[in-house]
Amino acid sequence: MTLKQDAKNGNITDVIRSAAAFEGVEPEMIRRGIADGTIVIPQNRLRSFPHIRAVGNGMRTKINANIGASPGFSDLDQELKKLETAVAHGTDAVMDLSLGPDQMRIRRKILAESPVMVGTVPIYQTGFEMASARRDIAEMRIDDFLKTIEQQAREGVDFMTIHSGITRSTFKTMSRQGRLLDVVSRGGSFMWAWLSENDQESPLFEYFDDILDILAAYDVTLSLGDGMRPGTTADASDRAQISELIVLGELAQQAGEKGVQVIIEGPGHVPLDQVPANMRLEKTLCNGAPFYILGPLVTDIASGYDHIAGAIGGAVAAQNGADFLCVVTPAEHLKLPSIEDVAQGVIAARIAAHAADLANGMAHAREKETAMAMARKQLDWETQTRSSIDPEKAARYRQESMIGDDNVCTMCGDFCAIRRINDLMS
Amino acid sequence: MTLKQDAKNGNITDVIRSAAAFEGVEPEMIRRGIADGTIVIPQNRLRSFPHIRAVGNGMRTKINANIGASPGFSDLDQELKKLETAVAHGTDAVMDLSLGPDQMRIRRKILAESPVMVGTVPIYQTGFEMASARRDIAEMRIDDFLKTIEQQAREGVDFMTIHSGITRSTFKTMSRQGRLLDVVSRGGSFMWAWLSENDQESPLFEYFDDILDILAAYDVTLSLGDGMRPGTTADASDRAQISELIVLGELAQQAGEKGVQVIIEGPGHVPLDQVPANMRLEKTLCNGAPFYILGPLVTDIASGYDHIAGAIGGAVAAQNGADFLCVVTPAEHLKLPSIEDVAQGVIAARIAAHAADLANGMAHAREKETAMAMARKQLDWETQTRSSIDPEKAARYRQESMIGDDNVCTMCGDFCAIRRINDLMS
Repeated sequence: MTLKQDAKNGNITDVIRSAAAFEGVEPEMIRRGIADGTIVIPQNRLRSFPHIRAVGNGMRTKINANIGASPGFSDLDQELKKLETAVAHGTDAVMDLSLGPDQMRIRRKILAESPVMVGTVPIYQTGFEMASARRDIAEMRIDDFLKTIEQQAREGVDFMTIHSGITRSTFKTMSRQGRLLDVVSRGGSFMWAWLSENDQESPLFEYFDDILDILAAYDVTLSLGDGMRPGTTADASDRAQISELIVLGELAQQAGEKGVQVIIEGPGHVPLDQVPANMRLEKTLCNGAPFYILGPLVTDIASGYDHIAGAIGGAVAAQNGADFLCVVTPAEHLKLPSIEDVAQGVIAARIAAHAADLANGMAHAREKETAMAMARKQLDWETQTRSSIDPEKAARYRQESMIGDDNVCTMCGDFCAIRRINDLMS
Repeated sequence: MTLKQDAKNGNITDVIRSAAAFEGVEPEMIRRGIADGTIVIPQNRLRSFPHIRAVGNGMRTKINANIGASPGFSDLDQELKKLETAVAHGTDAVMDLSLGPDQMRIRRKILAESPVMVGTVPIYQTGFEMASARRDIAEMRIDDFLKTIEQQAREGVDFMTIHSGITRSTFKTMSRQGRLLDVVSRGGSFMWAWLSENDQESPLFEYFDDILDILAAYDVTLSLGDGMRPGTTADASDRAQISELIVLGELAQQAGEKGVQVIIEGPGHVPLDQVPANMRLEKTLCNGAPFYILGPLVTDIASGYDHIAGAIGGAVAAQNGADFLCVVTPAEHLKLPSIEDVAQGVIAARIAAHAADLANGMAHAREKETAMAMARKQLDWETQTRSSIDPEKAARYRQESMIGDDNVCTMCGDFCAIRRINDLMS
């Protein structure tokens, strides 16, 4: 039985209890959410890890950090350090997006070491192996793909991105659309190439039931990929994107009936005013399935600072219903992220997630705010540092700001407003 | 005649033409906005500088960077470098918030060198001079203050923050409020101390007409300070804050009648869900006067990364009516910002301003997005770099990402989605 089947049968499992304890909610609330498809707890039945997390309706906003090597740059130690850094800064999940000769070795090591759920995009492996065998992606048959997901499921991958929503029909809608920047999803570009060269339905759609059978066998959560996501704000919320989302909603329903937990992936480059509508539509079109936003960039021009553009969009997205935010690093659009880029991205995403949870009235977020405000009032720098999103940076800045024994900082010195008011009121 | 009186008389001045040319709008639109108080163009009649900017309804969102020394740390060269850095990264204004023995020397030098409008908070000078003469701020009389603003106006300051909204009445509302973090405005804390020690009306309110006479004489724009702004998200939008805003609306009307241009200052720490209501209220309570947001932090816990918390709030604020965003640097709450902190803050604020302008359908923002998207499609790295918010950082990251002659990057290498689609479509 999968977790979802258990939940439908009314069983509250240890995994549900563990996720509920973290959230501070009743396990029954999470069980109901898993049963009706509005909450998922990704965990492969062959893997165990300490940070079990629920993603979805009423849960704290979760974040995922992408790590992994590329054909141009590969270093196992560096990827493991990225994992460690992302976890240390509070990520709830990592996706290993490795593509290239080392991908299997890196994935296995990450699965062995990660204390958080691990996701992958299996078509990267299929595509790379075919390219290595000098076979074009257009020659891919369903067995090539099923073999990959079976292998990765057996290794313990907790959730997988699969682009079954790029069908002949969405392919045609996209062709008629006339986009500025066509397809920017790496997985989407594989399927686009396949559909361009074969006059048939996508095998990832046609054999979706076979895919589900494997996922159900290992209890892998399905993350339905948005291969048609906009790659520029000019293409956002267009017919290609929304057509694919409708297909994803239908596929989610099909998966749910087979006991497979489902997340829906979403954009991408979206102007700020369109973010709430995108969140609303996903919930209505996909029966409230958890929405996983792959970097909600509210502008195209923030190269080098896409973690900030992503934090703006991420906060507004999560405020309006997004459940899971993908970290965007400062390296996005420019290069594979460094360890420091991953740290900066995770911190920015956590600020966005927390700001949304606060806006949505969640008690854990309000408590953190109050702790910081009280520490500021008391000029208690130690608690301020500990209450900060990145205590190490806060401590370093504070260290540079010590002046005398006055407990103030170099911003105002003796003219500290807080100290003045405390004196007046004491 | 002040610019506002000119505008009311139907005169389109060179200053209006210059601001209109930058915006790409008809000068008449700006003239009308200045006449009805929804737009300002801050410029002291004794100062001239190249970057004349209109702030307000229908204009591009503008940003201001705070610079200036403090009693604990003062270095003229460093402040001039901050000015240069802020301008190089695209700030539309600077405020010299210097407080301490060097404040006059620093202000004069900044006024001499700045190519953008310069603002100050004159009560810092009054307060510091009184403290130096061992007089308590509670002993301040209106002439002490008028002398300061006359001096600064004569030196050429373009806009001044004045906290006339902290009246006996708002003081009482605040006392009854019971806040977590009381007053965090430095200027506000001076006036709070004054009102605590004197059983009289605030001189900045009582003699508001005398203040206006000086501002009108030099055509200094009045930025009405929000001394009661919340210092934690827990205190946001409370009775103290909104009472003061009502007073600011009345004062703005009084100033407008005297021909003085007015900006209203606003919070501060505000949870994301309260940001739109704050913007809406300012417009209704203050007859549409331009709203200047002093760092819209959507969480208290981002110490070290307040530029990101400020970018989230700033983007949503500007999307909902804020006209002028104050830069928040990573040093906020911890120390006086370094030159690099100022750069990071300005860049984050510009991303927020641009994201809001794009969301609000402004043509200049849309054009920048399209230029970047086209450059990405063409894998034209030089144009991508040039189109980035910080070309230097984009170029550096790109340099670290060169692999072979293939024109791709280390993120995907040969599996670049854009190149694949371009090949398929060519």
